[in-house]
Amino acid sequence: MTIDEKVAQLGAQWLKLQADGDHQTRELEMTDSTQSSSLSEKLAHGLGQITRPLGTVPVDAKEGVMALNALQKQLVEETRLGIPAIPHEECLVGLMAKGATLCPSSLNYGHTWNPQLIEQLAEEIGDQARSVGCKQGLAPVLDVSRDVRWGRTEECLSEDPYHTGIMAISYVKGLQGEKRDLYATLKHFVGHSYSEGARNHAPVHLGFKELNDTFLLPFEMAVKLGNAASVMPAYHDIDNEACHASHHLLTDVLRNQWGFDGLIVADYGGIELLKSHHALTDTVEGAAALALKAGVDVELPDDCTSSRFKQALEKGLISEADLDETVSRVLKAKFELGLFEDPYTDVESVCLTSDKADALAYQVASESIVLLENRNTLPLAAQTKLAVVGPTADDAMALLGGYSFPVHLILSKEESDGVKVCPTILDALSQQFEHVSYAKGCDILTERHANAPVFPGDVNMVIDHEAKWPLSEDITGFAEMESTINAAEVAIVCVGDLAGLFQTGTVGEGSDVDSLELPGVQLNMLQRAVDTGKPVVVVMTGGRPYNLGGLEDKVAAIVCGWAPGQEGARAIADVLCGVVNPSGRLTVSIPKSAGAVPYFYNHKLKSAGTPVAFHFGSKYGFGYGLSYTQFEYGEMTLAQSSVDMEGVIDVTIEVSNRGDVAGSEVVQLYVRDCVCSLVRPLKELKGFNKVELAAGETKKVCFSLPVDMLNFTDYSGQRVVEAGEFEIMVGSSADSIHQRAMVMVEGTKRVLPKQWRMVCETR
Amino acid sequence: MTIDEKVAQLGAQWLKLQADGDHQTRELEMTDSTQSSSLSEKLAHGLGQITRPLGTVPVDAKEGVMALNALQKQLVEETRLGIPAIPHEECLVGLMAKGATLCPSSLNYGHTWNPQLIEQLAEEIGDQARSVGCKQGLAPVLDVSRDVRWGRTEECLSEDPYHTGIMAISYVKGLQGEKRDLYATLKHFVGHSYSEGARNHAPVHLGFKELNDTFLLPFEMAVKLGNAASVMPAYHDIDNEACHASHHLLTDVLRNQWGFDGLIVADYGGIELLKSHHALTDTVEGAAALALKAGVDVELPDDCTSSRFKQALEKGLISEADLDETVSRVLKAKFELGLFEDPYTDVESVCLTSDKADALAYQVASESIVLLENRNTLPLAAQTKLAVVGPTADDAMALLGGYSFPVHLILSKEESDGVKVCPTILDALSQQFEHVSYAKGCDILTERHANAPVFPGDVNMVIDHEAKWPLSEDITGFAEMESTINAAEVAIVCVGDLAGLFQTGTVGEGSDVDSLELPGVQLNMLQRAVDTGKPVVVVMTGGRPYNLGGLEDKVAAIVCGWAPGQEGARAIADVLCGVVNPSGRLTVSIPKSAGAVPYFYNHKLKSAGTPVAFHFGSKYGFGYGLSYTQFEYGEMTLAQSSVDMEGVIDVTIEVSNRGDVAGSEVVQLYVRDCVCSLVRPLKELKGFNKVELAAGETKKVCFSLPVDMLNFTDYSGQRVVEAGEFEIMVGSSADSIHQRAMVMVEGTKRVLPKQWRMVCETR
Repeated sequence: MTIDEKVAQLGAQWLKLQADGDHQTRELEMTDSTQSSSLSEKLAHGLGQITRPLGTVPVDAKEGVMALNALQKQLVEETRLGIPAIPHEECLVGLMAKGATLCPSSLNYGHTWNPQLIEQLAEEIGDQARSVGCKQGLAPVLDVSRDVRWGRTEECLSEDPYHTGIMAISYVKGLQGEKRDLYATLKHFVGHSYSEGARNHAPVHLGFKELNDTFLLPFEMAVKLGNAASVMPAYHDIDNEACHASHHLLTDVLRNQWGFDGLIVADYGGIELLKSHHALTDTVEGAAALALKAGVDVELPDDCTSSRFKQALEKGLISEADLDETVSRVLKAKFELGLFEDPYTDVESVCLTSDKADALAYQVASESIVLLENRNTLPLAAQTKLAVVGPTADDAMALLGGYSFPVHLILSKEESDGVKVCPTILDALSQQFEHVSYAKGCDILTERHANAPVFPGDVNMVIDHEAKWPLSEDITGFAEMESTINAAEVAIVCVGDLAGLFQTGTVGEGSDVDSLELPGVQLNMLQRAVDTGKPVVVVMTGGRPYNLGGLEDKVAAIVCGWAPGQEGARAIADVLCGVVNPSGRLTVSIPKSAGAVPYFYNHKLKSAGTPVAFHFGSKYGFGYGLSYTQFEYGEMTLAQSSVDMEGVIDVTIEVSNRGDVAGSEVVQLYVRDCVCSLVRPLKELKGFNKVELAAGETKKVCFSLPVDMLNFTDYSGQRVVEAGEFEIMVGSSADSIHQRAMVMVEGTKRVLPKQWRMVCETR
Repeated sequence: MTIDEKVAQLGAQWLKLQADGDHQTRELEMTDSTQSSSLSEKLAHGLGQITRPLGTVPVDAKEGVMALNALQKQLVEETRLGIPAIPHEECLVGLMAKGATLCPSSLNYGHTWNPQLIEQLAEEIGDQARSVGCKQGLAPVLDVSRDVRWGRTEECLSEDPYHTGIMAISYVKGLQGEKRDLYATLKHFVGHSYSEGARNHAPVHLGFKELNDTFLLPFEMAVKLGNAASVMPAYHDIDNEACHASHHLLTDVLRNQWGFDGLIVADYGGIELLKSHHALTDTVEGAAALALKAGVDVELPDDCTSSRFKQALEKGLISEADLDETVSRVLKAKFELGLFEDPYTDVESVCLTSDKADALAYQVASESIVLLENRNTLPLAAQTKLAVVGPTADDAMALLGGYSFPVHLILSKEESDGVKVCPTILDALSQQFEHVSYAKGCDILTERHANAPVFPGDVNMVIDHEAKWPLSEDITGFAEMESTINAAEVAIVCVGDLAGLFQTGTVGEGSDVDSLELPGVQLNMLQRAVDTGKPVVVVMTGGRPYNLGGLEDKVAAIVCGWAPGQEGARAIADVLCGVVNPSGRLTVSIPKSAGAVPYFYNHKLKSAGTPVAFHFGSKYGFGYGLSYTQFEYGEMTLAQSSVDMEGVIDVTIEVSNRGDVAGSEVVQLYVRDCVCSLVRPLKELKGFNKVELAAGETKKVCFSLPVDMLNFTDYSGQRVVEAGEFEIMVGSSADSIHQRAMVMVEGTKRVLPKQWRMVCETR
């Protein structure tokens, strides 16, 4: 291979593909550099990856596949070596392409506490992706939620690292399949969710021990147990070190310590941003060299152009051996993905919808809905006269995550005609209930397009203190809402937010907030609804939790649906009428206010302050969620009162359904390290099991907790287990522990081997 | 020395001293342990330190000194070795004792930007302390402010590490004097101000590089250039490592790398809390051993009793050599402090007030007042008819910091009769202006005593979601306020907060908040004042900045006085009438809301978010402050366009007073590292000079910036300077840069020697 041919394998092109071959370039918003060379020049020596062949503009799937085939043909037949490219797509909330299943958000995945179900859904997403020739999906997101002001909270699974890891393993296994002929991509490596002020791309302030205990753990689980084939570094810096330039994280930890054998792909523009955002170098080739030497294999998309790698080589910033190592990994991936056997995709096999996919999307939505309050109100009889009100009641976009295709189109300002959306809550309730009236009440935003967002590449930028969200302040719809409610028996008040990239919504990537009150005038609207005196059922949807300013205690019920996707409205309606007994449990604590963050259940004793800060804590904590039935916990049995360093702690507990309807309970196992050489959290989830129980049924739930899982990261950065007492707790939430016991781990401090036991088996 | 005699030197006793020798024990609120042995048992083998002989209960200074002498006599004459104890007192805002000068807060010290003045004030504080036999003062606080929700923001000097370091050197030099016969104590070592959620004692999440660049720097400066004799570790953990148990911080960095030769004294209860808060051990002797081995010399106060050190020895947790090393440091300190020459204090020399001290307290107060807004209103003629209103207008406590004696007494519920407070703003304005009327408007708090604060030693604590500040909601005083304003020409609206330990106030140690709106109904009150249509001058006092919810743009003027101490009211009055031209400049940015924190001027490019978060930034930024005159900056001259690694960059600029009154300008030098191997802040203060200028006068200001000061902490944890371009900026605030130029540093990366040049000389 020539140098040109080698460097070509490290790049990606972001194109608006045309079946006739007249592809257009798609610009990236954030970076400084501009592309100049023509497409044929860009492809002359081959290409590493193709960015979102179907996920960029609304294109009919078959036409898109034809265009992709044409591009692959050009690479195979018109370049000297004939190496096809890897097409990648977003796969977070389903395949991001016109017509594909609009799945619930990651937050919904997490809230199901059902890893088997998520594996099944990911299999469907994988099959849809394969059917359009996609070889790499940019999911899952393993950022452990810490501060819900962050817009990408909706992309997180959980505020618990173990829970995140378990769900991630399932997602990766489902998406990749046994053959690993489609790559999952773990992102954002690492700590992205704990940025300064919860602002997108902002610096992360962490030392390695906490980084490893909380943020690296799910990645380690998904690499070692999920066999994840790709990892994407995050945009930010940690302790001044940019992730895309971190040899320590990408090579020492990920490749060498964990044995990761896949591709490290840059986040979009992430290499160029080493120059224009992080100022680690003043040239783009310098940025390319930093990333390559740290361990990045491929730039996605190829914004600073792969030719920069060549310049880096010419300038001596990298060696040909560096280049060869990276290229060999790219080629190995292309072999594994079967591109050399068959680079083309069968147009006739394209399949972006199925009953099975719809059913799974529905199942995830229904299992992720959390019932926060219920004052003898839900479920509602089908004859109940409902007033369905609020800005999210009849807006399908309110049900979708930021990485769904319709939401992504807002920013790119592409025509969205014909792009499938989905039934609204109003639609679904009108199906389930006999008497439904509607009033919008208010809007959330006055407009849904980005107002020339500022991407600060300028070190001397002047902050515009007048800039603000285009939040609607119009309350003229309140009166109609009140009269609609007054004419009904129960008010279903639909509130929440709207996902949108880069401030085109109120949540999502680049849509970070300084308040956790409902955006706009929704809280006032809710107050007015409560003031009518009718029972108010709040249906909250969106990408982060909001507080209701005390109205939590005054409404009849609160149902949290997150961003439940195309089947979400139906699932919400089924919960309201009792067809579905809610079984979702919180995986993010709902903070009291934006001034009270960060709050997460797995905090240390002193996180509360000294004395306990008045505002500390969460009204609805991790693991919490009501059901239409009641569960009772029996005695807990520990098979061992002491256990050695390589042992397993067997915990058994009986759980009974004491109500008169079937329901599912999430039985949760927590551990506290009573004394440790470093400061540890008060409580950490170490196991969970979602159990279906018929009315009156009792089941025995067993956890086999390996002592390995009692590890923490010591001074030297290694995972170790120390002897001593550990408190074992079983409960229905982190705040509701039903049984406790102590177990003694005996022996001497043990440094864990590479293949330590990371999972608590349950049955 | 016997073991008993040795361990006795490591302890301290907190007593309510009585001249007749009938001393009572003072309890510490936070810790688990209880004291049992009698005082004579406790003193049988000697004693390391005496905790606050005068600063605990209101005692006449001469009586207190007699009691202290009696206790020293007991130690000298009734113990085998006759070793006196070191008496320590709080010295942060003046000596904390009945009748001593009530100095402005640390925040005021910082806002003067006048290190010479602070050195003079510290000399006075030191002299008062010496006069009552104090040998160690627990000050200054070098925590670099990061998140103003923290109650101890009032104890910080600045959000800039260099500014903090410069002021600290002055304070230490002033307090200790040439002979170092009174020890200053640098606290809280280290990072205390960047706790999770800005909650008191909460974990700090930082890696070593950022810790060293921002938080360790002022300590390093005060140790190396101030010759500080004592350091106090902080309560929190950093990256899971508790500061009191950190051998790395206390011994590797502080003693070995920096060459610190003094005493490391535990923060109150800090050793016992290694057990009861941090769970690093399950015994108190284990805690004692952890602290001693990390490098702590003395426990203040002796809550877990020095006998624990003996148990630690008996259990083999520490060796006698460990003990000897520590005891030798304590004895060396006692020699240096002159205790062996004369352990007694001359009762006749007791002196806690002086005209000089009053004058310096006044000078600091007047130089620290910041004029934020002035719409052709100030200064006011003496004939102006003033309505002075607001809850802080006639409350002397509103002018005092949390570490003043009257404020400390609130928590301990000691009788405060006869304890000197000071004139209020109303008193001072009534002196300066001919027509003053008054209305309170509202209260801040309904009560000023702690409501059984919870100190969480219980790992299974249940959070009380109903607990809240006793903030007053009473608005019945608004009407009288309005009529008072309507009858006047100008309204002076006095708002702010009240310092108080552990939630006895709204700011101060353990009084952390989730909102940056004025506490209680003050903002509503201010709105009502503005609605009268009369010009409103806001006088804001307190321990942290607050935002005014947009009223900043509607009032006639805003004057920030912080907690200006006993002379503060007079200084404020003198600013309002123009006797003093305000010259204070912000050292903490005023965030837009509690949901927008953390914000600090010396952030990185990406701190703003991508795209720039709507709420990012600060309306009034670091270094900002208005004057009654206008300053103009001339051209900037750099003596060198390039400089070598051991060089100095000489910067000269002319500043002119273009107005018609004299005034002082703070000329500020900032630097940006244009390209660096790690991510650096956009701007860092590297020099400043407060210049007095007569009307029409021009002065040349020169900075000599050593290249050493362009250092940052590299991967290996060392301070290094890298070659390359640096931008040199001179301005009147961080947001108002008047001149810029580039300088090239030539050579190869340099690891700084131990005695690197830390100060930018100015003239």
